[in-house]
Amino acid sequence: MKVKIAQIQLMVQENLEDSIRNIEQLANQIDNDVDFIMFPEMFACPYKTSNFPVYAEKQGEKIFRACSNLAKHTKKYLIAGSMPELDEGNIYNTSYVFDRNGELIAKHRKVHLFDIDVKNGQRFKESDTLSAGDKITVFDTEYGKCGLCICYDYRFPEMGRRMALAGAKMIFVPAAFNMTTGPAHWELMFRSQSLNNQVFSVGTSPARDEGYSYVAYGHSIVTNPWGEIVGQMDEKEGIQVTEIELDEVEEIREQLPLLRHRRSEIYHKMCTAQ
Amino acid sequence: MKVKIAQIQLMVQENLEDSIRNIEQLANQIDNDVDFIMFPEMFACPYKTSNFPVYAEKQGEKIFRACSNLAKHTKKYLIAGSMPELDEGNIYNTSYVFDRNGELIAKHRKVHLFDIDVKNGQRFKESDTLSAGDKITVFDTEYGKCGLCICYDYRFPEMGRRMALAGAKMIFVPAAFNMTTGPAHWELMFRSQSLNNQVFSVGTSPARDEGYSYVAYGHSIVTNPWGEIVGQMDEKEGIQVTEIELDEVEEIREQLPLLRHRRSEIYHKMCTAQ
Repeated sequence: MKVKIAQIQLMVQENLEDSIRNIEQLANQIDNDVDFIMFPEMFACPYKTSNFPVYAEKQGEKIFRACSNLAKHTKKYLIAGSMPELDEGNIYNTSYVFDRNGELIAKHRKVHLFDIDVKNGQRFKESDTLSAGDKITVFDTEYGKCGLCICYDYRFPEMGRRMALAGAKMIFVPAAFNMTTGPAHWELMFRSQSLNNQVFSVGTSPARDEGYSYVAYGHSIVTNPWGEIVGQMDEKEGIQVTEIELDEVEEIREQLPLLRHRRSEIYHKMCTAQ
Repeated sequence: MKVKIAQIQLMVQENLEDSIRNIEQLANQIDNDVDFIMFPEMFACPYKTSNFPVYAEKQGEKIFRACSNLAKHTKKYLIAGSMPELDEGNIYNTSYVFDRNGELIAKHRKVHLFDIDVKNGQRFKESDTLSAGDKITVFDTEYGKCGLCICYDYRFPEMGRRMALAGAKMIFVPAAFNMTTGPAHWELMFRSQSLNNQVFSVGTSPARDEGYSYVAYGHSIVTNPWGEIVGQMDEKEGIQVTEIELDEVEEIREQLPLLRHRRSEIYHKMCTAQ
């Protein structure tokens, strides 16, 4: 079964109205035969801890509704990147997914907050203003089950594994690596998670804004179940459309049965060892 | 703390006496300041399922004793690749580790048997003649804890994770990838396990013998906790000596605290989900 995915690597805007205009304008350029549209992490909120409380909305508010309408209008699935979500005084880094009718079908709150301090490199501390989710997210589509997590979440082998074991064949990862971790680890993370779990991975980043405090790496990517890159952008604003053959998941799993060869009776001990 | 590792990428011999002569001759070329010597998977048994019962020895027999003597004679730790081990009618793919006095300090039986059938590529079925181990292996040295597993074992993210959580900072992986999986996945596996678990990984392969039924990829490799390759050979017989700085493990873990950021209360569900 063939699936067409359009990744919108947009330049993040400071102003909410500009953001909405921008995603609508970009989404309207996408061909009719595309099945999934995907935005990057924090696509309408410049990535900075102090911004998250300022841009946060409750579920169902302005930017949420714009995304729902866009899915309905284009009649496509929409992986709506992520946005700061306000809920009972806490703020989450949240990704919503809408179906072809604009109905919400999945919601993932980033489980692993990005707190990093690399010598002579990137510093960032999401936990200054964000709270963490506590669920793994898998959702149903007409193409079968899909997984959803956000950026740093996908660093953790447990995440890809658990989504694959729950049936995901495509894993969507809105993300925003930086100029330290991007060149070092972006491809490696997507290729290895795809290979180890024999799934397609789709990572969508904002375009690079050199003038901003957190410089996104760009390079939105699609990797296949053999661990190969089947689509990758450069750092500029744009749209990448990739057609994938979902049957490859079963073909690869038949030839190299990694999931079947797991020895889960042994790994169980690892998980409780802490 | 600096550690020097010598990987012996040898050409596997058909005859046991030739094998022993070969490893002794190669090991005697190694400088005094090397700390660890390492052999590849099935270093004294041409890699073929029908050979495993023929070459199998009980623990403590000829090839085992040759390795113990070699460790004692060179006064180095010896990761003795792997060999077919006969025990109560079963045959295991077993790796022994000897300390500087020639004492056995670790033993790993391959947990994941390599049964693969790639379309237009490699076929192999270890389970035709081998039984699987059922333990994760970590051992103590004067340089701290080390992990040990064999080839296909390291495909599984759970293995690297569990060894790292048990304290391993260096993971030794005698291996024999082939001409299908080698070019596709050898570097990716070692780089991603090292990065995800922030450990050094040391993978040692036999040299490539184009005339044999199973053609080893070679390319013995060392990767660091940032996911970089710090040493890699070509396909020919030879010795690679790599000096690593073990303190990098703690430095990287401080800057990018992946192990500390794990959400084990969530992953636990994954492990029992099957």
